[in-house]
Amino acid sequence: MREPDSLHGSTVDLAAACADVLERVRAHAPRVHCITNAVAQSFTANVLLAAGARPSMTISPEEVGAFTASADALLVNLGTFDADRREATDTAIEVATEEDLPWVLDPVLIDRSPPRATYASALVKRGPRAVRLNHAEFAALAGAEPQAETLRRYALDALTVIGLTGETDVVTDGARLATIRNGHALMARVTAMGCVASALVAACLAVERDGWLATTAALLALGVAGEGAAAHARGPGSFAAEILDALYRLDRDTLVARAKVQ
Amino acid sequence: MREPDSLHGSTVDLAAACADVLERVRAHAPRVHCITNAVAQSFTANVLLAAGARPSMTISPEEVGAFTASADALLVNLGTFDADRREATDTAIEVATEEDLPWVLDPVLIDRSPPRATYASALVKRGPRAVRLNHAEFAALAGAEPQAETLRRYALDALTVIGLTGETDVVTDGARLATIRNGHALMARVTAMGCVASALVAACLAVERDGWLATTAALLALGVAGEGAAAHARGPGSFAAEILDALYRLDRDTLVARAKVQ
Amino acid sequence: MREPDSLHGSTVDLAAACADVLERVRAHAPRVHCITNAVAQSFTANVLLAAGARPSMTISPEEVGAFTASADALLVNLGTFDADRREATDTAIEVATEEDLPWVLDPVLIDRSPPRATYASALVKRGPRAVRLNHAEFAALAGAEPQAETLRRYALDALTVIGLTGETDVVTDGARLATIRNGHALMARVTAMGCVASALVAACLAVERDGWLATTAALLALGVAGEGAAAHARGPGSFAAEILDALYRLDRDTLVARAKVQ
Repeated sequence: MREPDSLHGSTVDLAAACADVLERVRAHAPRVHCITNAVAQSFTANVLLAAGARPSMTISPEEVGAFTASADALLVNLGTFDADRREATDTAIEVATEEDLPWVLDPVLIDRSPPRATYASALVKRGPRAVRLNHAEFAALAGAEPQAETLRRYALDALTVIGLTGETDVVTDGARLATIRNGHALMARVTAMGCVASALVAACLAVERDGWLATTAALLALGVAGEGAAAHARGPGSFAAEILDALYRLDRDTLVARAKVQ
Repeated sequence: MREPDSLHGSTVDLAAACADVLERVRAHAPRVHCITNAVAQSFTANVLLAAGARPSMTISPEEVGAFTASADALLVNLGTFDADRREATDTAIEVATEEDLPWVLDPVLIDRSPPRATYASALVKRGPRAVRLNHAEFAALAGAEPQAETLRRYALDALTVIGLTGETDVVTDGARLATIRNGHALMARVTAMGCVASALVAACLAVERDGWLATTAALLALGVAGEGAAAHARGPGSFAAEILDALYRLDRDTLVARAKVQ
Repeated sequence: MREPDSLHGSTVDLAAACADVLERVRAHAPRVHCITNAVAQSFTANVLLAAGARPSMTISPEEVGAFTASADALLVNLGTFDADRREATDTAIEVATEEDLPWVLDPVLIDRSPPRATYASALVKRGPRAVRLNHAEFAALAGAEPQAETLRRYALDALTVIGLTGETDVVTDGARLATIRNGHALMARVTAMGCVASALVAACLAVERDGWLATTAALLALGVAGEGAAAHARGPGSFAAEILDALYRLDRDTLVARAKVQ
């Protein structure tokens, strides 16, 4: 264990604050509208339901506005970068901005596709409350390797929260920086695990205005659930089911006891 | 247990008639063509396969006609209300009508989207053999809260069968009304559970001309399978796998013994 | 057990060569770009991850070229025959041909759709390293029932490898012919099982130039994993998770000991 971070009080306090956020998700069952890729849709909906949120998924340009307007948070995932989803995204962000709804950007695989990276940069300018990504995606977005300093600077410049996932997760709004050392290697063997992390961030943002705390709560919950799942799993197939079960059953005491966050 | 419904003989008789329908699904392996949303496609196909039916899923306008013509029943699910699916739906319903194939309408989330509700009402006029929906969706479709009387009247006016799912399921064709008190709360924590119920209705309609009996059989089977699944599940992830297993293994004796239908 | 096939040395030698291919998949983690149908996308990605490969799935015409160019193999699955996927397919095959990347064709359900069958025949002319299909699909493609002689002749004429799956799998390049008697009946009760077999063929082609050996390795691995999964499964739901676990854990000794290939 590292030393507690003096900025945020003890590790236990931060974990307890995260547990509060998750309890509010269960209590309020926020509606999360998800513009996401077809690979991730089903698992994303199931993760949100397991956590106590209510997902919707339409990308039809004719109705994405109404769905977003009646939602509590929005997820914009670039995993399939097609014309329909771009049009839906434009409408949904417009509505979210008007309604002051928080939204999360997940710039999936922008390191593999220059036009997608350009599009992601344009979306960052439209004010996501948080951006959840991995190392290669951050490098493609920020033009710099992800380190404490580059993450902080990007978050400050973009006025957003960066939630970087990997062996260690890092969450920063430029001022504060949390590190989460939970999770399990099997999480990288299940498709869309990053996508569902972003969806969980959206659910937490729906009930917590502090984007840094909401993002930390989401990534911590998924990491602790992943460890619980790995204890029962025999491989990535059973792990995918177990992590839903673990998230569904995750209680305050377990979260606080297992949290490796600071 | 309530009193048996005198219209349909005893509860045991109705459960036995439902078991007959499910056995015919296994014996005939009907082809069910599904126009459904991307969130639901994989789980829907797996539920149909577990029950013994043969799913197909294309929405390509160029070939949806051929797939429908060689199918035994059709599912029209409005979970993604995009232009492609509307065009495919139009063609598929036309072919189904020509070929006298039964089809099911699932007006997913029409309470969240006025244009989708308008579209659903127009589809009801085209003669679905059954409409499977939840309370909020019925209210949006019928302009009235779902109660025995409003359900009966809607079914009579629309010349269809209404399959309302919720804590208690209700199935009516206007004349007859079945209530099913099976199922489990975890069913609401797995995405597309309503969508798969509708697909199972389509599979039963393929082998049973009486739409009221077919719809009752489908909802009863899913409810009993859900109870069996919950006995083994530790959360919604394992539950989703267990309900497929339970449906696959569901036998006549179990169905009749556990049925709470009348 | 049958006699070893004298052309390829003993059965054990062929199984060992297959095990080598799978070890190279794990060692090199090849990138497999998949143009596949929405029903299959999530399971396909999870099978590739379980086997140690890295999937990508976009079908956006603007970026499918970049994804293919940075991939090690390509899967073209016709499960949804829509205009977007046809455009993406055209671009992806062009790039794969330029870059000398191996690609696999999976002509899903062409027996149900004449325009899809015509399209599949045109794609065969563009040089897939392998074609993975079932009996009805081969009959629709080749105009002949699948027998050793018709399979050999089609493979020779088309200069490709045919991987026919069914109760017994057959793999031939015209000169050599392998039969695989592994697998389990539950594989037919999980949607997209054929699709994931084709994806696994693509992963093996990425690390093995001999298309016949790569295809044999992929189908053998899935068959042996399926048998392992069936030993633990209670139905098709648990089976789908177990086969991912079994594929993830499959080691050389198990593969060689259980292989019924010659």
